[in-house]
Amino acid sequence: MTVTIIGIGLIGGSMALTLKEKGFAAKIIGVDSNAEHCQKALTLRLVDEIQEMKEAVLQSDLVILATPINAAEALLPVVLELVNRQVVMDVGSTKKIICESAAKHLNRGRFVATHPMWGTEYSGPEAAVKGAFEGKATVICSKENSDADAVSLVEKVYGLLGMHLIYMNAADHDVHVAYVSHISHITSFALANTVLEKEKEGDAIFELASGGFESTVRLAKSNPAMWVPIFMQNRENVLDVLNEHIAQLRKFKACLEKENYEYLGELIENANGIKRILK
Amino acid sequence: MTVTIIGIGLIGGSMALTLKEKGFAAKIIGVDSNAEHCQKALTLRLVDEIQEMKEAVLQSDLVILATPINAAEALLPVVLELVNRQVVMDVGSTKKIICESAAKHLNRGRFVATHPMWGTEYSGPEAAVKGAFEGKATVICSKENSDADAVSLVEKVYGLLGMHLIYMNAADHDVHVAYVSHISHITSFALANTVLEKEKEGDAIFELASGGFESTVRLAKSNPAMWVPIFMQNRENVLDVLNEHIAQLRKFKACLEKENYEYLGELIENANGIKRILK
Repeated sequence: MTVTIIGIGLIGGSMALTLKEKGFAAKIIGVDSNAEHCQKALTLRLVDEIQEMKEAVLQSDLVILATPINAAEALLPVVLELVNRQVVMDVGSTKKIICESAAKHLNRGRFVATHPMWGTEYSGPEAAVKGAFEGKATVICSKENSDADAVSLVEKVYGLLGMHLIYMNAADHDVHVAYVSHISHITSFALANTVLEKEKEGDAIFELASGGFESTVRLAKSNPAMWVPIFMQNRENVLDVLNEHIAQLRKFKACLEKENYEYLGELIENANGIKRILK
Repeated sequence: MTVTIIGIGLIGGSMALTLKEKGFAAKIIGVDSNAEHCQKALTLRLVDEIQEMKEAVLQSDLVILATPINAAEALLPVVLELVNRQVVMDVGSTKKIICESAAKHLNRGRFVATHPMWGTEYSGPEAAVKGAFEGKATVICSKENSDADAVSLVEKVYGLLGMHLIYMNAADHDVHVAYVSHISHITSFALANTVLEKEKEGDAIFELASGGFESTVRLAKSNPAMWVPIFMQNRENVLDVLNEHIAQLRKFKACLEKENYEYLGELIENANGIKRILK
C-alpha cells in the first residue's frame, strides 16, 4: 500500500515509522511545505520520497493529514477534490471544524476524522518516535459520515499502532480534550511565564527545580504554530475550562488568605481523587 | 556511625537505603509515631530497629528529622534538648520557621537546616526509592549558625547521596521554592479538581487522558498531611506566586476572549523560554 503523509512532523513521522516497520506501507510519500523538514524526513528515513501534494495523493491508497489543524482544515477540501478510491484521515486535536470543512464535500465519505491521544512537547521530523501511540486511545469522530471501507482501513492503521478506539461525535470530543489536554497546556504555559518573570531577578532558582517542577512545566515547550490554532478552534470550550480552573485556583487563594487550613486540606484530599484515574 | 531517622517515609526511608548501602550508617534507628509505618520500615529493611525518640537520639551520631514540617518544627527543640555531640539535620520544604524554632536554643550549633530538592507524589515507607536524590541539589540554609563539624558531616551525607550543594539564607530559600515547587503543587491540585468536577458527568473523558495530562496532574496525588503545613508555613510567598500565576492565566483568558491570537502566540513563545532551563 502507498501512503502519503502530509506534514512530516511529530505525529506524521511517528506514524510513518510504524507503518513502514509493520509492512503496512510499501511506500511512504512525504508532503511538507517546509523544505528543511522534507530533507530531514528523507535523511531520517521517515519517508521514501518527497512529492508535491497532488501527484502524491493521486498515486496513494491512504492519505494522512498531519499538519497543524489550521492547515489541515484548509487542505482537506483540496485533498478530497483529488480522491476517488483513496482514504483520507486527519489526526488533529480538534474535530468539529475539520468535520465541518468536509461536511458538504461530495467525497466526504472518503474522509475519517481521528485524533490519536499521544504527543510530546517536541515537534518536527526529529521529534518522531518509534513505538509512539502504543497503548493509548484514538478517537474516531462521526464515523457514520465516512464510508465503511474507509473506517475499516483507518481502524486497521490504529490497530497496527497498538491503539484502542473510542467513537464520539466531534462536539463531545472537543469538550473532552479541552479538559484532558488543552487546559494542561495553558496551565503549563502560564506556569512557565510566572516563573520566567521571576527569573529576571536571577537564575539561581532554577538550580532548585526538580522533578515536580519539570513535570508541570514541560508542556510549556510546545510549539505555538501547533497550539494557537488549537486554542482558536476550540476557543469556547477552552474558555469554559479555563474559567473553571481559575475558579479552582481562587479557592486555594481564599484558603491561604483566610488561613482556612481545614478547607485547604479538603481541597487537596479532593484532588487526591485523581488517583482513581491516574494509576 | 549510628543514625536515627525520625519520620520513616518517602524522604527518611530513601535516605536510609543509601546511607546503609554506602556503609555510612552501621546502624539505622527509626522513630515514627505511626505504628504501621514502623512495622513497614522494619519489613522493608529501611531501619535496623525502632525505638522511642529519646533513647534513639542519645545513642546516635546523626539525627535526621524527616517528618512533615509542622511536626519537625515542634520536635526540633525537643531533640536539641537531648543532644550534645550529635548532629541534627532536617529535610523540610520550608526553612524560615524551622530555623526560627532552633534560633535561640543553646544547642543551635548542632543543627543544620537542609532541603534536598527531590521528592515524588507518594508518601510513607513503601514510597522510599533506592538511588533517590542522585544528581539533584540540596539547599543548606544559614550554615553560619551551625557548628563547622556539623556542617561537614551533613555535607558528607549529601555527597554520599550524590547531591550538589547550594547555600542560601532561609528567607531566600522559601521564596525560591514557592516558585519552583509549591506553585506546581497548587496548579496540579487545582487542575485535578477542575477535571474531577467535570467527571461527575461521566468517566469517558479519562480514557482520553494521555501523557501531557498525567504529567501536569500527577503532583495532585500528593499527601495533604505534608502539603497543608508547607502552604501554611510559606503562606505569604505562595500567595504572591499564586497571584502572579492567576494573572498569567488571565492573560491567556483575555487573548481567547478578545480573539487576540497574535498576543496568544507571543505568550506561548515566551513560555517556550523554559527550554533554556529545562533541557
